[in-house]
Amino acid sequence: MSSWFEAPFPEINLLALSKAEERQGTLTKPPGSLGYLEHIAIQFAGWQATITPTPVARKTSIAIFAADHGVADEGVSAFPQAVTVEMVKNFARGGAAISVLANHHGAALHIINVGTANSVKDIPDVVDYSVAKGTANFLKQPAMTEAQCFEALTVGQSVIKEVISDDTQLFVGGEMGIANTSSATAICCALLNYDVSELVGAGTGLDNASIEHKAQVIESALSLHNVGSAKPIDVLCAVGGFEIAALAGAYIAAAQRGIPSLVDGFITTAAALVACRLRPELKSWLLFSHQSAEKGHRLVLEHLGVRPLLSLDMRLGEASGAAVCLPIIDSALVLHANMATFEEAQVQDGT
Amino acid sequence: MSSWFEAPFPEINLLALSKAEERQGTLTKPPGSLGYLEHIAIQFAGWQATITPTPVARKTSIAIFAADHGVADEGVSAFPQAVTVEMVKNFARGGAAISVLANHHGAALHIINVGTANSVKDIPDVVDYSVAKGTANFLKQPAMTEAQCFEALTVGQSVIKEVISDDTQLFVGGEMGIANTSSATAICCALLNYDVSELVGAGTGLDNASIEHKAQVIESALSLHNVGSAKPIDVLCAVGGFEIAALAGAYIAAAQRGIPSLVDGFITTAAALVACRLRPELKSWLLFSHQSAEKGHRLVLEHLGVRPLLSLDMRLGEASGAAVCLPIIDSALVLHANMATFEEAQVQDGT
Repeated sequence: MSSWFEAPFPEINLLALSKAEERQGTLTKPPGSLGYLEHIAIQFAGWQATITPTPVARKTSIAIFAADHGVADEGVSAFPQAVTVEMVKNFARGGAAISVLANHHGAALHIINVGTANSVKDIPDVVDYSVAKGTANFLKQPAMTEAQCFEALTVGQSVIKEVISDDTQLFVGGEMGIANTSSATAICCALLNYDVSELVGAGTGLDNASIEHKAQVIESALSLHNVGSAKPIDVLCAVGGFEIAALAGAYIAAAQRGIPSLVDGFITTAAALVACRLRPELKSWLLFSHQSAEKGHRLVLEHLGVRPLLSLDMRLGEASGAAVCLPIIDSALVLHANMATFEEAQVQDGT
Repeated sequence: MSSWFEAPFPEINLLALSKAEERQGTLTKPPGSLGYLEHIAIQFAGWQATITPTPVARKTSIAIFAADHGVADEGVSAFPQAVTVEMVKNFARGGAAISVLANHHGAALHIINVGTANSVKDIPDVVDYSVAKGTANFLKQPAMTEAQCFEALTVGQSVIKEVISDDTQLFVGGEMGIANTSSATAICCALLNYDVSELVGAGTGLDNASIEHKAQVIESALSLHNVGSAKPIDVLCAVGGFEIAALAGAYIAAAQRGIPSLVDGFITTAAALVACRLRPELKSWLLFSHQSAEKGHRLVLEHLGVRPLLSLDMRLGEASGAAVCLPIIDSALVLHANMATFEEAQVQDGT
């Protein structure tokens, strides 16, 4: 089946990228001494197709995708399902972590409903693309139909069209959805063949007995749906979430427009994993922000072979880890653009 | 011998600290989900003596201490000694990494000469507190006399008096001095009883043969000076540097004024180690910014039992790692001050 998400990505500008790498070698510092910041600057040179890429924090579009999960009925979260929409309201009013961080760092924040159980219609500034009032309980039946899955993926594409302007240089996806670490864990176990016990974690704050229960729910679901060698779309249909599908679609759609994405925490990494399975070239358009305290995240990042910028034991989601990384990226870019070269500063370069 | 650096520190405000900890529990997020950012906000509440501490990047005073090292004669650095003053010029002109970062993040930058081999008198905006034209070659004799050591420590105090105003909320020390990883390595080996091979690293970029040579120079010096159970001041005199002594003095003097310090990389951590040996209570006024790629840094941070904010393989010094952390601290502080509570936002708190 042919689909919008099979459309090609633009080429990364390898000339700008290699010129940026050369420039790094001329700046007044021992070669390589800015570590991973050098890599970041060079990557953005390729993405922005210029030797000295512009800082991105104030040119970042953040979109938070909210949805509910039928599996919340099984008691896999420390919070009740009503909290999903209560937090959507909090995003819109400016009281949530991501609201505070987006405002502080000058990034644009967009809030998208992809399928919450409760209504968002009285909440201002929420874009309503609801696929259904939450997924089905995946312990008993597939979380969504194939039609719903494509609809949710395409919500990601629609959102990218709306939130990315000519001025945008970076996309950040976030999520809100009670019980979505269960869905993300199930997806990662299915696609990477991990045992549930290796990836399952505390989510919003379960105790050990509840984590054990959550693991059993996920294990039963994985047996029920027989996802051992299933395709990514089939895994999404079986145990996914609307917000996870929308994020996967958004990452692909952003790359199709030549915009890199900064991936947030565990849930968004699960979405990025699905998206990379659909489009392996996507990986070269992704940067990973932080390693979450959620147990499975480290292993999934390792599987992807990517390096997070931060590891501060954050585990909040909502794009909060990515938002904390925006100024680190900008530090890398202003250093790259504004440091003097050995020649300009008349400093001996040690060679 | 009684000295200014034995004067007491103010008390950390434990009431503000515990009220801030309480406030963290009321914010609209699962308890603990902001990870180390919560700890940072709570620490600053104690330091600033207020439940909601003010952001610090624009209230930060950065001082870079520059000095030369006689041991550079032994070929322990990839760069010639003249580079110390060439880089001081680059700091003043705005072309160095720390110049770019201080400017970008709105922190004040001060440049201090504590003892460079070449003159800085034609360089504008450099404060000249030169103790001598570099230390003596510690492979052959003590790096400095006890009088010089006290003078250099006291430069740190004088600088704190000058760079900290009523508005300052954070001090950041940086350093520039060709061959100073040799001095820092020798200090840490002497004070922590590590073998030189465990801590010695590439500095500005030595190859393996040169690292081996550097290790032999440091080992010979440690035997010559018999520093096995020496006091911190004696270790500084034997194998220290003027900039390292000044940094140690500055950390103590800042804490005496109730100002916390954000420690940069390997050299500044060696200075912080000396300062903590002189004044163990200092540790509660220090925050550690990043884990450098310099090999010994991880072990010394572990010995101190402290957690760096970042680990990006930076190894430049000049306070550059600390400067990259300023916006992370501010993110922690604005989240703490501006997030809605569960009650304000009418979100169920899951209990």
